[in-house]
Amino acid sequence: MNLHALYHRSQSNYCYCYDEEKVHIRLRSAKNDLDQVILIYGDKYDWEKKQKIIMELIGSDGLFDYFAAIVKPDKKRLAYFFEVVKGKEKLYYTEWGISKEIDRKELHMHYFQYPYMHRTDMQVVPQWAKDAVFYQIFPERFNNGDPSISPANTRDWCEKPEAANFFGGDLKGIMSKISYLEQLGINAVYLTPIFEAPTNHKYDTTDYYKIDPHFGDLKVFKELVSKCHEKGIKVVLDAVFNHSGFFFAPFQDVIKNGEESPYYEWFNIHKWPLKMDPPSYDTFAFSPYMPKLNTQNPEVKNYLLCVARYWIKEADIDGWRLDVCDEVDHEFWRSFKKTVKEAKPDAFIIGEMWLNSLPWLLGDQFDTVMNYPLTRNCLQYFAYNQISDKQFKESITKIQMNHMQQVNEVMFNLLDSHDTPRFLTLAGGNRSKLKLAAAFQMTYIGTPCIYYGTEVGMEGLQDPDCRRPMEWNEENWDLDLYSYYKGLIHLRRNHEALREGSFRWIDTYDGIIGYIRETEKERILVFINNHEKGQEIDIGCNTVINALSGDLLQGCEGKLSIKMDKYSVQILIVKQ
Amino acid sequence: MNLHALYHRSQSNYCYCYDEEKVHIRLRSAKNDLDQVILIYGDKYDWEKKQKIIMELIGSDGLFDYFAAIVKPDKKRLAYFFEVVKGKEKLYYTEWGISKEIDRKELHMHYFQYPYMHRTDMQVVPQWAKDAVFYQIFPERFNNGDPSISPANTRDWCEKPEAANFFGGDLKGIMSKISYLEQLGINAVYLTPIFEAPTNHKYDTTDYYKIDPHFGDLKVFKELVSKCHEKGIKVVLDAVFNHSGFFFAPFQDVIKNGEESPYYEWFNIHKWPLKMDPPSYDTFAFSPYMPKLNTQNPEVKNYLLCVARYWIKEADIDGWRLDVCDEVDHEFWRSFKKTVKEAKPDAFIIGEMWLNSLPWLLGDQFDTVMNYPLTRNCLQYFAYNQISDKQFKESITKIQMNHMQQVNEVMFNLLDSHDTPRFLTLAGGNRSKLKLAAAFQMTYIGTPCIYYGTEVGMEGLQDPDCRRPMEWNEENWDLDLYSYYKGLIHLRRNHEALREGSFRWIDTYDGIIGYIRETEKERILVFINNHEKGQEIDIGCNTVINALSGDLLQGCEGKLSIKMDKYSVQILIVKQ
Repeated sequence: MNLHALYHRSQSNYCYCYDEEKVHIRLRSAKNDLDQVILIYGDKYDWEKKQKIIMELIGSDGLFDYFAAIVKPDKKRLAYFFEVVKGKEKLYYTEWGISKEIDRKELHMHYFQYPYMHRTDMQVVPQWAKDAVFYQIFPERFNNGDPSISPANTRDWCEKPEAANFFGGDLKGIMSKISYLEQLGINAVYLTPIFEAPTNHKYDTTDYYKIDPHFGDLKVFKELVSKCHEKGIKVVLDAVFNHSGFFFAPFQDVIKNGEESPYYEWFNIHKWPLKMDPPSYDTFAFSPYMPKLNTQNPEVKNYLLCVARYWIKEADIDGWRLDVCDEVDHEFWRSFKKTVKEAKPDAFIIGEMWLNSLPWLLGDQFDTVMNYPLTRNCLQYFAYNQISDKQFKESITKIQMNHMQQVNEVMFNLLDSHDTPRFLTLAGGNRSKLKLAAAFQMTYIGTPCIYYGTEVGMEGLQDPDCRRPMEWNEENWDLDLYSYYKGLIHLRRNHEALREGSFRWIDTYDGIIGYIRETEKERILVFINNHEKGQEIDIGCNTVINALSGDLLQGCEGKLSIKMDKYSVQILIVKQ
Repeated sequence: MNLHALYHRSQSNYCYCYDEEKVHIRLRSAKNDLDQVILIYGDKYDWEKKQKIIMELIGSDGLFDYFAAIVKPDKKRLAYFFEVVKGKEKLYYTEWGISKEIDRKELHMHYFQYPYMHRTDMQVVPQWAKDAVFYQIFPERFNNGDPSISPANTRDWCEKPEAANFFGGDLKGIMSKISYLEQLGINAVYLTPIFEAPTNHKYDTTDYYKIDPHFGDLKVFKELVSKCHEKGIKVVLDAVFNHSGFFFAPFQDVIKNGEESPYYEWFNIHKWPLKMDPPSYDTFAFSPYMPKLNTQNPEVKNYLLCVARYWIKEADIDGWRLDVCDEVDHEFWRSFKKTVKEAKPDAFIIGEMWLNSLPWLLGDQFDTVMNYPLTRNCLQYFAYNQISDKQFKESITKIQMNHMQQVNEVMFNLLDSHDTPRFLTLAGGNRSKLKLAAAFQMTYIGTPCIYYGTEVGMEGLQDPDCRRPMEWNEENWDLDLYSYYKGLIHLRRNHEALREGSFRWIDTYDGIIGYIRETEKERILVFINNHEKGQEIDIGCNTVINALSGDLLQGCEGKLSIKMDKYSVQILIVKQ
């Protein structure tokens, strides 16, 4: 038995409350090593009534197998350990380590424990986020609805974006496209920053309480949110709290008054007088125009929490996406979560993270994070054909195992964003690749987000190129892609199994990845052929409906053969 | 290379801020597997200036080696990964996994990160706790200083303790023994509960604001604390916040007024009317006399936080030991820490934990926990001779690796307590065994705590027997043991290296465990022979002082031979 591989830790992604009734337990072992894992569990104050359950092998990555079980502790207290079996070898894995026997008198030194299930400590995510299909808008580039407020130097809509140029996109522009969004089928938008700031991206806030005048004003924004809500569309804003802009009044006050400024401690000034090159104060990266806010200072903390509350209370927004959130202290985010959920209990909090996000996703800080690891896997698998079917499945499994199930259910799954090249461009413009990736995104577990224009085939390399003005000339649209996206979005929105169903790989077919999404009410099979070669697969004698075409497919004599063209997907609703 | 064994996780015991300058990094690998581990680290926004450092192998347990390094990030931001080497095999271990190469364009998807060092998130422990030698007192059994307030049914001091009998110990009794404590050399006391409660142990609080009348009153308690402080002795009380007693006024109000009671939500009542057998409300274990407090209710939370603050502000206590703290929500403890540290920044917070305590020791909750895993290892090694020298060292290393260094420095190291049989009894009354264990406890890293009477050879099995009245008849004392303890305590208090020095095993001698405690100023060697057979060891040509006897030992011609009798210890101060 590979003892080095065995891993479990309570109160982590390996053991957590899924809800007020259920505790999810996972165990990691070396791949293909164990024959069986038995979970022995009970109440430590009443161990005689302990129970046993065989854990299920729910997935594997390159190195490890993952076993899982769900238990419902009677008195909210859970003590447990594992019996791991390989051939004739049987060992116990406890908090104390691995052993052949456990001395009954010493049980209290061996249990793993979820000592008590408290709602206050649980990771509870908003229900609506599970049902959401997001659309990310970079407001300066989406639509110009009010040329009268466009910057003086506004470029023509069809010019090329540069790091510092402007195109005049604004809130009225978004407002006038709500019907477009509605038709596309999305039901949530995430807007990159909209508060006053000198740049086109507005990640250098001048005034957290003011809509950028080139975008509109409070009245227009409130109208936008209200119109979105009328159409069932939630609105999430971008919170840039790691740093302010250079022209943020408190920073300007420091520039003016130096150590006398009441805002001197709002930043981390190394040395007075200020120097900009290199900056003599903490900044985002090394940018002198983005002084880092001292969120450890209670005044700053309070200021930013008021901002967070204000936009919920004043404009009724539905959540915040948190910029550079890993460089802000956890203590700040804990208070942030409390403030935000108090203002709106089902507000959605999305962290901008690129990798390890577990420390922020244990119940006290974020609801979810941007799933860039998934982005990368989709690129490697669909866009580059760089990894095998098996490797893709393994990586996806690994990402799942990194988080609690309720987090996976609202993982912010994206193929591209304002911070990455566009997927289609990285796929060499190959539409079939994007379509496969989109089909995966829309049928996979988690909350999908479409970066504006992806649905009509917009391209773009790394920033600034990925921030081109939205293509509104339908003649330039890839209509096939557009209707494909529309179909996928509607499919997801109409099928509970795709939004909230369990996820399980189907390992039956070579060269085809397959998975099942399932709730008590429905069962959907997804098959993806990410290869040059078509093939037929037999999915057994079910009656299924092709979810995108609506065709009824009927098996006969125990066989139902499904044709998988090269680079194609089949989404099949099982008739029960 | 054993890839399954490689383990690292940022923002955990594997990567944390030790202070505002230093980040400690650890890597786990299979035992005896790797030849070298190189840490490659830098600022992710300025990766060109990255640095390399060879990590040091700092210890091993049964299965794993642990490598460590300390780095000082320039801009408080740290990105890093590992190069692991075995023979000609060289691999990178990153947040993304293990690979032969890392694509430079993809670095942002590979770094492990400590994204930003914030003081608000750091685990900062009180300095005095590093310098403390604690003494645990069970007040009902320590000394009767005021017979006029003893319970009516008080037993004679020399009778046997039973689960429910009383002996009249009280606060004046403790006060009159301060000089005893002073002479012994301890500089901190931890008192089990002293608030009004019907039992002798008082873990069933009736009134959190009232000293138990059989123990004294507020005036006496304040005098006790003040006298202790005069003598440089800190005072830590027991916070029983998981549950109240049956006679706690709010619970009585619920009994009286049922669902009409304003305190109904202070508990978790399953069903009205209340039943006691089995209890129809949440309790500690299954005890109807200890109704579990609903610490998730803001009113209860606020009430208990006020209690925590009150005893600091009113009586100037120096910290809290937290009873059954694993069954109280983390959210409560986060607020508790804030409240307590606000009231007294260097208050010491000690959790009662038996095993996995990491989730409470990451910076936002406790300072330390009772180190029962160490207790168990000391029993197995010293008292039972059940594990080998190697196994003992491995287990101790494992416990160290489970926690941040600053937590190890104040780990509440105990050999026994009111909740365990006495060490001496478990060691079959063998004094030499207790002496070895005590020498280890007093020279090891962490804050030692002596359970009252251990120093004079008191015995006792599991509760109630381990709660015998303190032996004050010096004729019954083991004077040799007493002076040995006194010597050890003074040694620790006089030598910085024993309190704050680094810890490293010496692996040179068979049958002898040895370790070095070292600061910049001093270096102390400890050798323990836990075997029936004496031997001589050559510790090289140093001049050393036998710390307990004061003898100067001088080597000659590169050799210094030290005689280790059976079951003996040598604590040697290296003359530099």
